[in-house]
Amino acid sequence: MTSRPPLHCLRCARAAEGFAGCRTCAAEGIGVNTMPPLADLAGVDLAAYPGGPWGLPQALPVSGPPVTLGEGDTPCVRLRTDPAPAHDGRSDGRAQDGRHVGEVWLKYEGGNPTGSHKDRAMAVGVAAAVAAGAGTVAAASSGNAGAAAAAYAARAGLRCVVFTNEKVPAGLCAQIDALGAERRVHPGSTADRNAAMARAVEEHRWYPLTSYSSPSPGGNPYANEGYKSVAYELARDFAGRRLDAVVVPTSRADLLAGIGRGFRELAAAGLIDREPRLVAAEPSAAAPFTAALRRTDRADQERTRIAARPTVAFSLGEERPCWQGLDALWRAAGTAVALDDETITAETRRLAAEGLTLEPSSAVGSAVAREFARTPGTLVVAIGTATGLKGLAG
Amino acid sequence: MTSRPPLHCLRCARAAEGFAGCRTCAAEGIGVNTMPPLADLAGVDLAAYPGGPWGLPQALPVSGPPVTLGEGDTPCVRLRTDPAPAHDGRSDGRAQDGRHVGEVWLKYEGGNPTGSHKDRAMAVGVAAAVAAGAGTVAAASSGNAGAAAAAYAARAGLRCVVFTNEKVPAGLCAQIDALGAERRVHPGSTADRNAAMARAVEEHRWYPLTSYSSPSPGGNPYANEGYKSVAYELARDFAGRRLDAVVVPTSRADLLAGIGRGFRELAAAGLIDREPRLVAAEPSAAAPFTAALRRTDRADQERTRIAARPTVAFSLGEERPCWQGLDALWRAAGTAVALDDETITAETRRLAAEGLTLEPSSAVGSAVAREFARTPGTLVVAIGTATGLKGLAG
Repeated sequence: MTSRPPLHCLRCARAAEGFAGCRTCAAEGIGVNTMPPLADLAGVDLAAYPGGPWGLPQALPVSGPPVTLGEGDTPCVRLRTDPAPAHDGRSDGRAQDGRHVGEVWLKYEGGNPTGSHKDRAMAVGVAAAVAAGAGTVAAASSGNAGAAAAAYAARAGLRCVVFTNEKVPAGLCAQIDALGAERRVHPGSTADRNAAMARAVEEHRWYPLTSYSSPSPGGNPYANEGYKSVAYELARDFAGRRLDAVVVPTSRADLLAGIGRGFRELAAAGLIDREPRLVAAEPSAAAPFTAALRRTDRADQERTRIAARPTVAFSLGEERPCWQGLDALWRAAGTAVALDDETITAETRRLAAEGLTLEPSSAVGSAVAREFARTPGTLVVAIGTATGLKGLAG
Repeated sequence: MTSRPPLHCLRCARAAEGFAGCRTCAAEGIGVNTMPPLADLAGVDLAAYPGGPWGLPQALPVSGPPVTLGEGDTPCVRLRTDPAPAHDGRSDGRAQDGRHVGEVWLKYEGGNPTGSHKDRAMAVGVAAAVAAGAGTVAAASSGNAGAAAAAYAARAGLRCVVFTNEKVPAGLCAQIDALGAERRVHPGSTADRNAAMARAVEEHRWYPLTSYSSPSPGGNPYANEGYKSVAYELARDFAGRRLDAVVVPTSRADLLAGIGRGFRELAAAGLIDREPRLVAAEPSAAAPFTAALRRTDRADQERTRIAARPTVAFSLGEERPCWQGLDALWRAAGTAVALDDETITAETRRLAAEGLTLEPSSAVGSAVAREFARTPGTLVVAIGTATGLKGLAG
């Protein structure tokens, strides 16, 4: 067992233990994650950074040996911005003329070992579990996180239990099963599923790799630090260019917050001139960040609650904006945009027509990114969070 | 349209046109590919090579613009070589003691945009098609090549027709369909399927991205040059180390031959000290290279014909050893090893138990690689050709 950096609440700064978020803020009805201090990247040579969480181990809150399946260092693919109908159906004169629109790039996280960005977090989270002496890790997941948890647990030789519900596509279930994890299906609500995981964490001391408490603070703080590598890779790959916005499909905002932290570390070390704007992309059916940012007072924003409906973007869907996401957006002049299922489905097809197979939850990001690239000269990156392969035959 | 380097038969050195292989050698009953000259890599700085076919465009026989989805630069993951039963069930004293076995690494090609190594070839092949002024590309495929052809054709805005048979898993069919390709299912033999493609190439001048003639010479010569990038990446990633063997799951030997050509270019330019040994890994049910190399006379080897049976490694299965593969093995002190379906299935499970989801055809490679790493100090790389995700829910 190795020493772990201390965790503090992002909102009230109180020191915290465990992985259920800040209890003080939870008592106020606000789910706030606790996190280790930001890393000091001074002296890092980004050009020599090989990508992935373990490419900059000094930025991670884990001092034990790496657990890796080759995650990270995913490619950026430039999307076509030639004429296409805007999502609201309106014809846009500028977009009709290719010269007048900015650049949209897709960072393809589907190329990760289990097919999603979750691998970056689970590589670090499972390493933290090993360092903590855990024998069993647990994840509550609608799919991709469960598959990633299963894979990295297998890699490290740990037992893995995945708490799922019945919405999970067959391909994802098969992947989790093939990786040797124990899948516990809870037919009830997400709250029931999380409560079951909370009991297991409490009773058996299983190591939690994902969020399981309510209101959700977001995922395991150590695991989430793996997402900072997305920012490092973007800073390396777009060195010398002004990156205007990074669009992130958002549910509990683990990825959004992690990317934001990565850019803050880079800016603090002078490795980038300025942090790009962050944009949370949500399905209209479950868009707590979009709802929150419509309110003017931050005290109202952090207490926003919406009624989530089912959506084709099945990986997404929260009722409250996790505070870590609001924090990331506030710090990065960020905003949130919600798109309806029809637009998300159309974008999924549009990506396929460019050769890219992504799940609908990922298409939310590129659809929003296209909107932000309507100004000439803009450079926008959408995070394409997961491959669409798992849902194809399900 | 841009100029293309001339093609010559690998065996008889005659100049050739078209993509049906050498007609002179075919008349002798031997399927031999025609290829452009090897590239000159003198002066290349491998440490700065970013990976992928387009990372060294001067090594490719295409002078037009790249077609890319971010293929290549895949990770190498070290496999566990701790005690495990040998595939024949025999207990091996050396393998029981972890210190006494060599290193086995898996190059995970499932991280490519469509989930297989085929992306490296199709990126280059579709660029060659664009440079040749093609409007429609065609592929005859049991799956992964069809999906890759569909994706890169979509990327380049070309029409794509994929000739398949009924063995193709549902996940792969769904992927090809989602990418907008036209799938023509031929219920008959592979020969029927290929004949249909041959007619289309002849009548409609469709640009062939895969093999379609009989005896098969292997795939499109320009496309195949994309596979050289696997060798370049290995040379970069294992710089300063002695790479003893590279094990390649083999059917028509496009990948095997491409990797061999890449290493030859590297050696000729002094970028590696020596070429690693190449090993063709085959399912016992369809193992023409293993059968051929049991014969002593090369004239007998190249005329070998076996009766292929069905196998869990459904992506593999030829009746004759494509000459390009024999050539690669002869030049690299190579050999071929065949494993039965039980062993292949066990290795697929063993990889999953390490967190890696690969298709059975890919597991053939790592199972063979483990055999070659039984000597202390050996360093063996298996090419993990494709993700197992496509077959999971099929």
